[in-house]
Amino acid sequence: MIKSKHLLGIKELSPEEINLILDTASGFKDVLGRDIKKVPPLRGKTMVSLFFEPSTRTRTSFTLAAKRLSADVVNFSVPTSSVVKGETLKDTALTIQALGADYVVIRHSSAGVPHFLSSILNSSIINAGDGTNEHPTQALLDLFTMRAHKKNIKGLNVAIIGDIAHSRVAKSNIYALTKLGANVSVICPPTLEPVGIGKLGIKVFNSVEQGIKNADVVMTLRLQLERQNKGFLPSLEEYFKLYGLTTERLKMAKDDAIVMHPGPMNRGVEIESEVADGPRSVILEQVTNGLAVRMAVLYLLAGAKK
Amino acid sequence: MIKSKHLLGIKELSPEEINLILDTASGFKDVLGRDIKKVPPLRGKTMVSLFFEPSTRTRTSFTLAAKRLSADVVNFSVPTSSVVKGETLKDTALTIQALGADYVVIRHSSAGVPHFLSSILNSSIINAGDGTNEHPTQALLDLFTMRAHKKNIKGLNVAIIGDIAHSRVAKSNIYALTKLGANVSVICPPTLEPVGIGKLGIKVFNSVEQGIKNADVVMTLRLQLERQNKGFLPSLEEYFKLYGLTTERLKMAKDDAIVMHPGPMNRGVEIESEVADGPRSVILEQVTNGLAVRMAVLYLLAGAKK
Amino acid sequence: MIKSKHLLGIKELSPEEINLILDTASGFKDVLGRDIKKVPPLRGKTMVSLFFEPSTRTRTSFTLAAKRLSADVVNFSVPTSSVVKGETLKDTALTIQALGADYVVIRHSSAGVPHFLSSILNSSIINAGDGTNEHPTQALLDLFTMRAHKKNIKGLNVAIIGDIAHSRVAKSNIYALTKLGANVSVICPPTLEPVGIGKLGIKVFNSVEQGIKNADVVMTLRLQLERQNKGFLPSLEEYFKLYGLTTERLKMAKDDAIVMHPGPMNRGVEIESEVADGPRSVILEQVTNGLAVRMAVLYLLAGAKK
Repeated sequence: MIKSKHLLGIKELSPEEINLILDTASGFKDVLGRDIKKVPPLRGKTMVSLFFEPSTRTRTSFTLAAKRLSADVVNFSVPTSSVVKGETLKDTALTIQALGADYVVIRHSSAGVPHFLSSILNSSIINAGDGTNEHPTQALLDLFTMRAHKKNIKGLNVAIIGDIAHSRVAKSNIYALTKLGANVSVICPPTLEPVGIGKLGIKVFNSVEQGIKNADVVMTLRLQLERQNKGFLPSLEEYFKLYGLTTERLKMAKDDAIVMHPGPMNRGVEIESEVADGPRSVILEQVTNGLAVRMAVLYLLAGAKK
Repeated sequence: MIKSKHLLGIKELSPEEINLILDTASGFKDVLGRDIKKVPPLRGKTMVSLFFEPSTRTRTSFTLAAKRLSADVVNFSVPTSSVVKGETLKDTALTIQALGADYVVIRHSSAGVPHFLSSILNSSIINAGDGTNEHPTQALLDLFTMRAHKKNIKGLNVAIIGDIAHSRVAKSNIYALTKLGANVSVICPPTLEPVGIGKLGIKVFNSVEQGIKNADVVMTLRLQLERQNKGFLPSLEEYFKLYGLTTERLKMAKDDAIVMHPGPMNRGVEIESEVADGPRSVILEQVTNGLAVRMAVLYLLAGAKK
Repeated sequence: MIKSKHLLGIKELSPEEINLILDTASGFKDVLGRDIKKVPPLRGKTMVSLFFEPSTRTRTSFTLAAKRLSADVVNFSVPTSSVVKGETLKDTALTIQALGADYVVIRHSSAGVPHFLSSILNSSIINAGDGTNEHPTQALLDLFTMRAHKKNIKGLNVAIIGDIAHSRVAKSNIYALTKLGANVSVICPPTLEPVGIGKLGIKVFNSVEQGIKNADVVMTLRLQLERQNKGFLPSLEEYFKLYGLTTERLKMAKDDAIVMHPGPMNRGVEIESEVADGPRSVILEQVTNGLAVRMAVLYLLAGAKK
């Protein structure tokens, strides 16, 4: 049983809770394989999505997860042009709760917004990405995918390549993987190393070749193209040359290593097409597993509330 | 029983019809408190929302109201950039009807558009705000909220503060409250007094202190910030100083007076945060009651059609 | 039975398949006339719409058709500002499939995109308009409407007026009508004649008066106003003077000729209001029939998959 009715981050989950979510997702994955991909447990419940950053994929995945559990879904559209102030955000959130939202799925450019909402709302808050902090359902679907291919997370060698300092996907994965006993290596340019990395119990490399040596899982992150203007990154060509995941480089990992990417991909920037479409890629499986994991989260949080 | 299958304005409703809507909404409010907030009466019916002015709250409230009655909902998105001409509006409306809409929920910047549509369509037209004319479901949810706290509308002293001249919320409330026998005072800058105010049977004040004396209900309106450029308003600071609802001013009302606001609030402009979040505020209840009232409207208009 | 699980174009359908779709649509048209316009065959199925060109009408029609068959619908919103490259389109499509889409309804400005998607996806692809190539469901609803008024398509004289060279509506209609044995005349300015028109088995006219002589059906196309800047068209006034469908010109057709338009209309450009709203106009029936035809397509493609 999940203790909190909110999913704010992996940091807040126990290993047992992570495993419970993954086990529950297995059951829902079976539902997704059926001809009629719909089950009734959340009938009469309402999920409201509140996205302050655009994200078609994640929003669609949550929407379909909720609909397959028979919940009603409303997207609360946010005026992207106007600056939304803290005060207004609070009123917006209270309004959504007053409209009867059982779940509020929130994405925001500022870290900590889901935590703030959980302190003022009775609705279940689900973090769909908050600034450079966390993106917990992405990490859960990633672990679900690893488990499907590698049985145990414990002892697994996982290499994550990209802009580690700014990546909420990396951060949630690091928390989840270390909690379940995996060995995590991160690979990034020296300018993009996370601060306080020592405490996370992971290894840092600036060379792909060294970092992915002996890896069971190689995960490469989407390069946020808008960041290169800020002096963190070399040119895209240079980035690909130094950090792009190529067939050649992948040879340094284990022979049966799987390749992951949270999507959407910048082909030819962080990943070579031959790798993205190759036999080791499980990138599209990740998308399908995202549905199963989000169904599990919605289902289990409903139980936590009682 | 409601005579018309359209809800064009409070002006068109009898006191009996207003009371029937409020009584029906009471039943639906109970549904909203249940674990499964869904009932079947409008299964197989379709509501189309057609909003020519943006409004996330009202549109979401109608959408959820329809879904909780098991209707299907489609938002007909309107290109906001291009000017929509009368002729095109007619063709758009006829198309929506031909697509099988049982309800068309319309918001438009021009007064009278819902009436025009009701003259050409067989679908039930629901006015969700037409220019400076009416916003009938807002008034109905406001009366529902007053009744919940004050038992009877008859004899109630209601003070409304704001840009009365341009407010459709004020107008619909004035019609509804006077029909049910309340005493209405409006408080506004001299430049924002409504024309022909004498006929409405209400009192006009330019001072908050005087206008809310002895009030059972104090309603403050959202200040449309874009209007201040047009010379109607002083600066926002000046407006707050003169017309902002503060704890200090609220003392002039009855001790058990409730505070209402249609939302979204401009805190520090028309209302002080201490009042908005204080024990007399029923602002979030208004949001929840909006759902119940809109369910009642959709339900009763379906009956009117037969 | 439909052979392909995709609907890419009329070109790919046999006359028998066209008739099967029209016959099936008749059954669904009855459903649309009922009080409860909803049937269960696609419960648990998911339709994703992916529109790279805006189209409120067609998208809404597909959405309602799917909902009336009890399917779940998600609109995958496409960032309209950024150029979407071929590579990205493929990844987007694969992602949508991985999210479990049973149907992908696609509109794109480039001809052939639906065919490309059908070569990489297992989901049923439905072409909702691809560049200047085809718009098959529009032609199907047009034929359904003709059949409702004229019994047989075979031997029917159909005149189509407009920008034939660039019209996917014209093209799909020409394919469908000639397959079922109708006599098709097209009427357009000399600059807008389609290339290779001889092979299509139709007659070309540059004069409305001559082209619609003896017509049972007169269809006028929406003038894409943005094209006139490119030198293909005279001024709008000139276009109306030469090619506008007027009461006067309609006298040249048969006395019981029906008038069709795919919508939305530019009144006073390609059609006179008196004709659009006149007794021969079946323009709004086309909209309703579009729903029935799209329900039939969704229903039959599901059967084709097995």
